[in-house]
Amino acid sequence: MQMGEGVEWGLHCCVTLGWLADEGPVPIRRLAQWFDLPQEYLKKRLQALTRAGLLASTPGVKGGFSLARAPRDITLMDVVTALEGPVEPFPCTEIRRRGVSGEGAGREFDRPCGIAAAMRRAELAWRRELAARTVADLMDHSPGSAERTRRGYRRLVG
Amino acid sequence: MQMGEGVEWGLHCCVTLGWLADEGPVPIRRLAQWFDLPQEYLKKRLQALTRAGLLASTPGVKGGFSLARAPRDITLMDVVTALEGPVEPFPCTEIRRRGVSGEGAGREFDRPCGIAAAMRRAELAWRRELAARTVADLMDHSPGSAERTRRGYRRLVG
Repeated sequence: MQMGEGVEWGLHCCVTLGWLADEGPVPIRRLAQWFDLPQEYLKKRLQALTRAGLLASTPGVKGGFSLARAPRDITLMDVVTALEGPVEPFPCTEIRRRGVSGEGAGREFDRPCGIAAAMRRAELAWRRELAARTVADLMDHSPGSAERTRRGYRRLVG
Repeated sequence: MQMGEGVEWGLHCCVTLGWLADEGPVPIRRLAQWFDLPQEYLKKRLQALTRAGLLASTPGVKGGFSLARAPRDITLMDVVTALEGPVEPFPCTEIRRRGVSGEGAGREFDRPCGIAAAMRRAELAWRRELAARTVADLMDHSPGSAERTRRGYRRLVG
């Protein structure tokens, strides 16, 4: 059970775009250069974040990506869902209804399966944590990186 | 991000073996028949649970699988880890150290990455839930199924 590498890329790009909000849209090639990532793969991830309404994509020579909302309005859950799709860590196929197990169950299975419910509870605990934390929290975590990022970016494009 | 189907199989088998504790070891073909599952695939899962010390495998004509510990001493986390390996939902590759991002960072990256830490916190919330719930809890959740399982099994082997 593992997320794709795109989640790490997407989260770092959101935080970096938050720090660079005053610099205007950031071209994809600058972001790829920033983290030394393959540009075409990164583009697909950023397009997914754009489709989800988390990033804005500005076309043209001066175009690029920027956050589409305030950093405090983008949760980690938003980013994970945009990149991984509707995550369902425990796929329940109701095997309890199959074979001998399902015979003569009557209305017993009207009640949700205790196993699926327990796994779902754990998933919800995970979701709650991710939904409680935003890109703004991540930005605030590293004030030193914020300043260094802005300086580094101005040097890069200037 | 999704677990394999083996987790559902493994959890249901543990609960069923808990209910059938007084019937002696349950042959793999009975368990496969129970949930209408492919026997060879199921066997691999049960062998993984056995290697992890959660099930006991008794050889011979009257052999089969049984719980190796009391149901209250087998957590859902134990079962998931046995079947999925050491789960690390968020693979962090420290892209912050790469490219322009990593240049001139000095001791900045001595501090753990805020993104990795936030993702890890969510993972720990998930782990805590799974570690707090045991096969005994799952058995207790469905007393009706327990009784029906014992009756059905006796009919099957009798």
